Amino acid sequence: MNEFAPVLDDEAVAVARVLANDHVADVVEALNRESRETAIELLCAVPFVRLVEIFDQPELESAPELAEALPRDKAGKLLTAMSVDRAADILRELDGPARSELLGALAPPLRMTLLSILGYPEGSAASIMTTEFVSVPSNWTVGRTLDYIRKVERTRETVYAIYITDPETQLLLRATGLRRLITGEPEDSILSVAPDRAPVTVTPLTDRETLAQTISKYDLLALPVVDHGRILGIVTVDDIIDTMVEETTEDVHRFGGMEALDEPYMRMGFLAMIQKRAGWLCALFLSEMLTANAMQSYEGELGKAIVLTLFIPLIMSSGGNSGSQATSLVIRALALREIGLHDWWRVALRELPTGLVLGSILGVVGIFRIALWQYLGLYDYGQHWMLIAATVGAALIGIVTFGSLSGSMLPFALKRIGFDPASASAPFVATLVDVTGLVIYFSVALVILRGTLL
Amino acid sequence: MNEFAPVLDDEAVAVARVLANDHVADVVEALNRESRETAIELLCAVPFVRLVEIFDQPELESAPELAEALPRDKAGKLLTAMSVDRAADILRELDGPARSELLGALAPPLRMTLLSILGYPEGSAASIMTTEFVSVPSNWTVGRTLDYIRKVERTRETVYAIYITDPETQLLLRATGLRRLITGEPEDSILSVAPDRAPVTVTPLTDRETLAQTISKYDLLALPVVDHGRILGIVTVDDIIDTMVEETTEDVHRFGGMEALDEPYMRMGFLAMIQKRAGWLCALFLSEMLTANAMQSYEGELGKAIVLTLFIPLIMSSGGNSGSQATSLVIRALALREIGLHDWWRVALRELPTGLVLGSILGVVGIFRIALWQYLGLYDYGQHWMLIAATVGAALIGIVTFGSLSGSMLPFALKRIGFDPASASAPFVATLVDVTGLVIYFSVALVILRGTLL
Repeated sequence: MNEFAPVLDDEAVAVARVLANDHVADVVEALNRESRETAIELLCAVPFVRLVEIFDQPELESAPELAEALPRDKAGKLLTAMSVDRAADILRELDGPARSELLGALAPPLRMTLLSILGYPEGSAASIMTTEFVSVPSNWTVGRTLDYIRKVERTRETVYAIYITDPETQLLLRATGLRRLITGEPEDSILSVAPDRAPVTVTPLTDRETLAQTISKYDLLALPVVDHGRILGIVTVDDIIDTMVEETTEDVHRFGGMEALDEPYMRMGFLAMIQKRAGWLCALFLSEMLTANAMQSYEGELGKAIVLTLFIPLIMSSGGNSGSQATSLVIRALALREIGLHDWWRVALRELPTGLVLGSILGVVGIFRIALWQYLGLYDYGQHWMLIAATVGAALIGIVTFGSLSGSMLPFALKRIGFDPASASAPFVATLVDVTGLVIYFSVALVILRGTLL
Repeated sequence: MNEFAPVLDDEAVAVARVLANDHVADVVEALNRESRETAIELLCAVPFVRLVEIFDQPELESAPELAEALPRDKAGKLLTAMSVDRAADILRELDGPARSELLGALAPPLRMTLLSILGYPEGSAASIMTTEFVSVPSNWTVGRTLDYIRKVERTRETVYAIYITDPETQLLLRATGLRRLITGEPEDSILSVAPDRAPVTVTPLTDRETLAQTISKYDLLALPVVDHGRILGIVTVDDIIDTMVEETTEDVHRFGGMEALDEPYMRMGFLAMIQKRAGWLCALFLSEMLTANAMQSYEGELGKAIVLTLFIPLIMSSGGNSGSQATSLVIRALALREIGLHDWWRVALRELPTGLVLGSILGVVGIFRIALWQYLGLYDYGQHWMLIAATVGAALIGIVTFGSLSGSMLPFALKRIGFDPASASAPFVATLVDVTGLVIYFSVALVILRGTLL
């Protein structure tokens, strides 16, 4: 690699050293910190086996651009030697012409496999599966299977899960583990070391969330993707961990009220960042404008009792906060399948009393605060201060109850109309609750203060 | 199991059938749906091997209570046969006397192992590790190691990761995989099939988040927990997946502005639920009371220009929303180690222009909205409507910028003072921004409207 040293700066020399010796995951981390140009230069210098290892890491950023920048024949060899699921990931990110060109450099069988994986929607089981798994016919013995595994080990993403198929129909019959195999007698049938139970499988269109739940529930190292009884590929546990991390990022971003970023925060371009955030912010702003309309319609009351305006932010935020709590609870319970769509009324029956109790607690605190200020002479709410305190207290009960109830129902409603329930963000709920909160507040005020202040 | 049938209802009979034949994960799911009493009755009836399988599932709810309800000697045998990490989980949940009694029923070596695991803080690597792993001295051959694995396979949580130690010092030297072992020659040294690199390890106190990141980065099936060079136990990938799911639940709940529930939503008692939610709700409410103080100090201005109050909810919520976006971005970037504590100023330098642009977008929309209503005659903001529109627009720029900036800094501040940055919830940020938002709004109003309305 020395011949490249002159064109690289000191830091790059250090990276080159890492490239040769360190764990491939650390190599990838070092490469990610380099500029695109330096990264390509370094990648051209590493031995081919190492290159394949590096591109097999899903953590390698801009892998598609880097692959595209390699000499065409090297890129073709790379895609052939890589694991099939990662090759598909890279091709998926490339635009049409670049993708076709790279696909053209591959042997027809691999090309067909990749094209069929690319045909599935992003995030589905089939789109992240690998076709490099171990499957053997059910008439093989343990010994023959072990010999076969020794031969193909290098080319398989995992050899710990072994799938047993019907020798004639190719249908998936059983699954077993290498640990069971090595404890078996070589001359026994492979079926003798497999549990006598149909394996846990997923369909090509199973989504990421279900994949994570299934693998976590059954403690498996891989999930077979099965179509019409035939195994198309497997999704391994490390792919699922990667998608779980991605999924969590998406959920956190969305719950914060924005489109999920698909790149690290610091790598995201400024305009792209604005775009991801402005859309939701504007949508929320436009909905929140309804509060101005609501306020306008109470202008008469506002003029008569300015003291009422003092508590508007306090009361509205309490509705938003209780709604945000309920939403986060229900989003998570739905995601974990603790509850289903049909449980909406059970949740409503829980949130109604919960909201009433929480609202009463805040109501008491609110009344106490007004009384305290009045007694201590910190502020004079006028002769009707007790009525004002009662208005604030009663409004809080109503608003917190409404917040809890609507916050808990929003994810159900979104799921019902086909959206991801996790799109129910905290700002979304707050906005939903704000207008109603104002209406509740002024309605309560009209009832309690009629004849005195209003 | 027939002798139990008479005391069980129809549903329980169906569960009993599931208990005998289905995948243990499905059995656990069925048991979780039963009452405590029925579950205990059913568990007393299953064969011992099945009982162990069932209790080895972390998904079994109320496992500690169920274990406590079993006959004492059966419970002792169960804890002995179970995987060590699950046994520790169960003991951790029991109160003092019950725990001591169960521990007393165990053989001294196991009791010592469990007590040492229980001594580590909850959530640390050592608290979730199992001591049932495969380690062999470095002077063994591949063949001897394979023979050994065949013998101990049943008693080990995983045999796919094999740890190689120095025969004299017991220090951990290398790690390898069963797949490498079966491709090696029996008479070769075990070191010949291990990568020539120190294994990736964690310390006993490594937290769950780091465990997940490490296993995901290096694509491992297990992580060795090492203290002073000696391996204490391993954390397997399925334990880590389970803790990732738990961690995500906690994060979602906290971001919603409440304490994380440690039980499924529907199983949580009513009072416990109130407790988890009321604390944060009250804390936020008390902080939000500062808005009432802020409003009081602008009472004079409010009296002169009631039209200003119309936009208070709109302006305040925009600050909260932009803050919530920034917080969710930074929480996630910190969790994924994309940024560190020292990057706060780089984030601030990104959020400042981002906030200015986003604020300007909302400002333009807001001005347009006021102008539109005025032109269409939907509402009359008075002769100075243009100045009011300018006030709203300018305030939005200030508030959204302040929201983005403080929302992005809050997780850093929390992390700096030793809290989990994920404690920065959307309601927390909104509350933080609300008071300042009011001050910004009225300050802008005083500058623009002085001499006209104010």
